[in-house]
Amino acid sequence: MSAVAVVGSVAFDDIETPAGRAAHVLGGSATHFAVAASYFCPVHLIAVVGDDFPADEREYLASRGIDLSGLEVRPGRTFRWSGRYHEDLNVRDTLALELNVFADFRPDVAAAVRRAPYVFLANIDPALQQGVLDQFERPVLVACDTMNHWIASAREPLEALLPRIDLLVVNDEEARLLSGERNVARAARRILDRGPRTVLIKRGEYGAILFSPESVFAVPAFPLEDVFDPTGAGDAFAGGMVGHLAATGDRTDAGLRRAIVYGSVLASYIVEDFGGRRLRTLTRDDIERRYRQFVALTEF
Amino acid sequence: MSAVAVVGSVAFDDIETPAGRAAHVLGGSATHFAVAASYFCPVHLIAVVGDDFPADEREYLASRGIDLSGLEVRPGRTFRWSGRYHEDLNVRDTLALELNVFADFRPDVAAAVRRAPYVFLANIDPALQQGVLDQFERPVLVACDTMNHWIASAREPLEALLPRIDLLVVNDEEARLLSGERNVARAARRILDRGPRTVLIKRGEYGAILFSPESVFAVPAFPLEDVFDPTGAGDAFAGGMVGHLAATGDRTDAGLRRAIVYGSVLASYIVEDFGGRRLRTLTRDDIERRYRQFVALTEF
Repeated sequence: MSAVAVVGSVAFDDIETPAGRAAHVLGGSATHFAVAASYFCPVHLIAVVGDDFPADEREYLASRGIDLSGLEVRPGRTFRWSGRYHEDLNVRDTLALELNVFADFRPDVAAAVRRAPYVFLANIDPALQQGVLDQFERPVLVACDTMNHWIASAREPLEALLPRIDLLVVNDEEARLLSGERNVARAARRILDRGPRTVLIKRGEYGAILFSPESVFAVPAFPLEDVFDPTGAGDAFAGGMVGHLAATGDRTDAGLRRAIVYGSVLASYIVEDFGGRRLRTLTRDDIERRYRQFVALTEF
Repeated sequence: MSAVAVVGSVAFDDIETPAGRAAHVLGGSATHFAVAASYFCPVHLIAVVGDDFPADEREYLASRGIDLSGLEVRPGRTFRWSGRYHEDLNVRDTLALELNVFADFRPDVAAAVRRAPYVFLANIDPALQQGVLDQFERPVLVACDTMNHWIASAREPLEALLPRIDLLVVNDEEARLLSGERNVARAARRILDRGPRTVLIKRGEYGAILFSPESVFAVPAFPLEDVFDPTGAGDAFAGGMVGHLAATGDRTDAGLRRAIVYGSVLASYIVEDFGGRRLRTLTRDDIERRYRQFVALTEF
């Protein structure tokens, strides 16, 4: 079983959705990814928090088997985000954003972590993603997330990074912006032309679709009656997916498909409560049960 | 192999999409349904056209094995529709609508057709759908389409019809309007409470999802790089689905799932050209080939 290293944010979120609100919940892309991946394989977390970061949150992450040696603690406050989702949960407004200690985040990856064969570059500045990736010795699979903000404001470093990515993870809006194509199949084709070996397009409540030069795989989202909070769904998806790939080492098309379903399973759970709360009680049995429900949902 | 009877419109359409435009193409819900279903089983068409309806279009429908004895010809012009699709193909504007001979359509179903075991009530006035359904002797499966217009303006007759429907076919917007629920799973549950045995929710480029009290089945749409015209996609979907059900007689959950994939296949083809043009050259081999592509698209 291989380990996965993730670089990204650890944050506290104030979240408002049509289902309610939650204040000061543990969030951040690297957090949600790491917790989701921890069900499958060892995880190295590369991130920064302020000296306000509570011991019990640290203990929670450690209890999931996550290696926190790369979790820098700096004087100051931890990253904070505050947002409000619309009735259409695909739309959200950022109400406040305090980078705090994250503003000067320039991670120096420890020697032991540099040998991690699976790497996930969560949604941060592409220049920072590249700086981190450069420190890894010989990763067998590099997955990368990004967002509209970077596509618009840092297209050059992002495009320079793409040929080094095995699995680019974007949502449909990001795929459109990156490719200039509205149609999802055309958008994927254009993105693949820019270098990543495969591209996974997340479509929220509609599921996800993977494009590689040889294959296309589509999986629906799990049709939940109650979606409390979509925050972290994309990162939990990536965590389940990359974690499962690292656990099995099966990077064939079939292995990637199963990993994507595990990603879908983790995403389907995290939205059942605010932030990452649902994952705090999630068991491996829950994961296997919903994997079987995905089989039942899609088989014909 | 059982026969299916369809009641709905036969029309001529003027269509404008981002891919181009086409004038005076054969359209109408019953047309697209009948042609799609004709790949699988005998079809009885119950509709009305004006005395302007060309002999070659009649011959085309007859060449598909469609029984035209229920295609009334009345003095006057055939139904005409003119519409324009937006860049987002899920949005369209109706530019002109001439009911013409369809305005007084009150079909009297012939004795032989009344015994058809499969019935599709295409998207017309619910009172008219009920009047037609009343004439059938003992259908084993009744499928029904509707639209926002009827949900808003004829909710009472529509709701009276629902308990008699085995398979209600709506898109997500219609499901929301009918149920008052935004979430697709809740919407489906509410609709099932009103009587239909199963509800299929069409989601355009995202595929379709079937809800029954016992099971949920989701299938993605085929990721085409070129979608010329979505007109008729829903009716071709229903035609492929109900036609396949009538052909196999397999109304189990597994049979319904396979039928839904055949519906998805027909929908994926009809959007490749304007109106129903693509179906004029479509072969049964094409259908089987894309069915296998759907297996490859979804299996894990």
